[in-house]
Order: sequence, then structure tokens, then C-alpha cells
Amino acid sequence: MNKKNINAAIIIIGNEILSGRTKDTNTSTLATWLNSIGIKVFEVRVIPDDEQTIIDNVNTLRKKYDYIFTSGGIGPTHDDITASSISKAFEKKYKIHKEAFKILEAYYKPGEFNEGRQKMVWMPENAELILNPTSGAPGFYVENVFCLPGVPSILKSMIGSLKNKIVGGKPILSHTISLRTVESEIASSLTKIQENNKDIEIGSYPFFQAGKLGVSIVLRSEDQSKINNCNSQILDFVKEKNIEVVDR
Amino acid sequence: MNKKNINAAIIIIGNEILSGRTKDTNTSTLATWLNSIGIKVFEVRVIPDDEQTIIDNVNTLRKKYDYIFTSGGIGPTHDDITASSISKAFEKKYKIHKEAFKILEAYYKPGEFNEGRQKMVWMPENAELILNPTSGAPGFYVENVFCLPGVPSILKSMIGSLKNKIVGGKPILSHTISLRTVESEIASSLTKIQENNKDIEIGSYPFFQAGKLGVSIVLRSEDQSKINNCNSQILDFVKEKNIEVVDR
Repeated sequence: MNKKNINAAIIIIGNEILSGRTKDTNTSTLATWLNSIGIKVFEVRVIPDDEQTIIDNVNTLRKKYDYIFTSGGIGPTHDDITASSISKAFEKKYKIHKEAFKILEAYYKPGEFNEGRQKMVWMPENAELILNPTSGAPGFYVENVFCLPGVPSILKSMIGSLKNKIVGGKPILSHTISLRTVESEIASSLTKIQENNKDIEIGSYPFFQAGKLGVSIVLRSEDQSKINNCNSQILDFVKEKNIEVVDR
Repeated sequence: MNKKNINAAIIIIGNEILSGRTKDTNTSTLATWLNSIGIKVFEVRVIPDDEQTIIDNVNTLRKKYDYIFTSGGIGPTHDDITASSISKAFEKKYKIHKEAFKILEAYYKPGEFNEGRQKMVWMPENAELILNPTSGAPGFYVENVFCLPGVPSILKSMIGSLKNKIVGGKPILSHTISLRTVESEIASSLTKIQENNKDIEIGSYPFFQAGKLGVSIVLRSEDQSKINNCNSQILDFVKEKNIEVVDR
């Protein structure tokens, strides 16, 4: 695998995001971590708790990207169908995972490992586990598809267990310059700088802070010296135009 | 168009979401509004500011769903490429929109309608405008593809201007019952209720509130009487199991 170009996609599974009821934060958690280990997220899809939709999306994306992360649908209730759908996507049996069974049997008090909870140890045959330090029930992965829960705090706590399972790339570095201006005042200068720095990703993001408008310019590259160089060019025109640099 | 089955997809365009830097809230804003007018969101995709990716996703999804809403990439800077990409997706010329030009010429003070700002009136030929009560620069639509800005407060303010352009369906009603329990305690009862109420979407969502665990059960249907009936069945087993109902 080329250390420099490792990519990923995220699939958020859940009707509650599509209905607008819940705001997704797992994309930001996963993407921030993946970026820090040099894996660029190319695509996120939010899809409903529907078996054929899950199968189709997993099968399309797992061939296209190095890693796929799914979030949601691995709990104990009837609408948790990720594990059975992933089994079908890989044409694997959906069965009790012995190691997961032992983990949950030990996790719960005697008599508490009921039918609902036992559903959480049904997984695709030969799936590998992703340990869950928060609430016991492990996630799992099959080949390059990593399945995590939808509850943000639990997902976050499981990232540590993923670390030795994922091969990262060269970290993608970023630098932000926040300015007290509006985008249209700096658009043509930024265009020129992007043309002169083609291998740096330059993003421009307007913000409101304490009732005032501003723009954050975000520079992203694997090469710190290129970021520094581009940063100087930006600070030059900022000084020239007498624009205030602000902390955010 | 069948009043009962109107669907939509949302395309969030922006590297800042894929890098994890910014959490997307536009999906929730759009989906909540669309649901209220009876349009179900079937899919959300987050994609980078990349021309071919925008073209491919718009062309795939606009044939699959009744409405497409895009968010992001219509500002004045070099990384705002949604309007030119949509022009290519529809094989239309990318040119100055006269009405948009007049709006922005009147919006800015004399001399302030500079080159950067003028970029915002370049659109696909014959695009229709979506008025922007917050910051002047209009969005636009071509056929069933509606293009909105990425800044959440501006996007929110433009929903009013969309209302007479979108044909809604039968509103999707929902009812939430929040319980002081964990999912595995109610999983088998809920499964039975879902089997007996096949045309109601029953979602189960664990939450943490004030340090305590709970589960919200969300019932969704176009039919209030079916929701009421299903609600009673749930309250029956909740009472039987002696589970506390909580406010959220």
C-alpha cells in the first residue's frame, strides 16, 4: 500500500440522521482521527436502516477505498441490522461470535446476559473484534470494513482499539489563519496563491464570532515547509491589505 | 407525482466536513424541514470540492430522487466550484445571471461589487434563483437540483424562499417516548411491536442525560391513528415492566 495515498469512506447508518432528529458527530470524530494518521476521507454517505441499501453501499465503497468505517446499527434492537447486512454483503454466515459471547458473558452480571444482549454477539463468520471499553459489546471488522456503534461517546472510546488494526499514511498537516474580513475581499488574492501553490489544499471558510464576520483560511498538505511558505505569502497580502489577523 | 412518496437526497460539498474540521449541521436543518413537508430524505453524501466528483454525484442522484439539495461551494473564493460543476453536470453554459447581477449590484454599496463578489452571479444558463435574505447572494436551481450555501445560518434563512418551489407530500408524523432503561431490556418487546405494526417505522436510540442512561423510541408514520395505537402498545409493556417514562 502506498504510504502516501491511503483513503477511506464513512457510512453512517441510521434513520435518525436522515430524519434530521439527530445531528451526526461521528463523521467529525472519525475524520479528525483518520486525518491525524494520514488517511484522507474521500466520501461520507448517510443511509437508512435498510438491508439492501447497506449491502449495496458497503459493496460499492469497499472496492473503491482502502478503508470503510460504518457507524450505527449494531445494538440489540430490531432496527440494528448492520451485522446481518454486512454478512450478506460479504456472503458470509451470520452467527454467534464465540469470543464476543465470552466477553459479554463476563461483562454482565449472572442472569443479565439476556436475549436482547445476545443479539450483539451475532456477526459475520470469522469477523475480527474491535474492543469496546465503554459498554462491553464489541464492534467488528471484515477485511477492510470496520463496524462501529452509533452512540458518539462509545464510538469515540473505541478508536483506541482500532489503532493497531489500521495502517496509516503520511499525516496530513494543516494550518489555519483567521482574518477579520469577508471572503469577497480576499478572493482574488487567494486564487493567485492557490495557482502558485497547486499542491496545497487551500480552503476558505467564513465564520461569525462574537457578532463579527471573519474568514478562516485553512492550508492542508503533507509538507510542513510548503505550508509555511504558503502561510508567508498569505500574511504578505494580509499586511498589504491591512486586514486584522484574529485568534479563534 | 405521487403525493405520498416524494423523496430527496442531500449533497454536502466541502473538504472542511471531510477533514473533520467542521461538523455538518445543514443535513439536520434540511432534513427536518423536508420531513415537515412530507419529503423523506433517503440519502446524504458528503463529497469534496472536486469538479468531477460533484458532476458524477449530482448526475447519479438527480435521476434517482425527486429532489436534490446541495450545500456549499457557491461563495466567491477559488474553492467555490459548485455552480460551474452543476453547469457541466447539466451540459449548460456557465454565465452571468442577469437577475442575480442586479440583486447584488443593488445590495452592495457603489464600488463594492468587486470581482470576487461578481463570481457569485455566475451560474448555469437559465438557472432559477433562490433568494437570500441574509447576505444577498442568491442560490439557484436547475430542474430538480437546488443549490444552497454552506454557512448554516444563511442556508437556514433561505428555506423560506424555497417553500413555493417545492411540492411536498403527506407530512411524516413522529412521536417520541423516552424511557429510563437500556435497549437490551426492551429489545424483544419492541421487536414484537414492530412485527405487529409493520407500516410504522420504529427507531430505538440510546441516550445519556444528566449522567443517566435512557432510550428514546421514535415512531414515524403518515397516519396519526397508527402512531397512537402503536404508542399505546408500547406504554402497555412499559407499565408491565415497571419502566419509568421520562421527559426529554
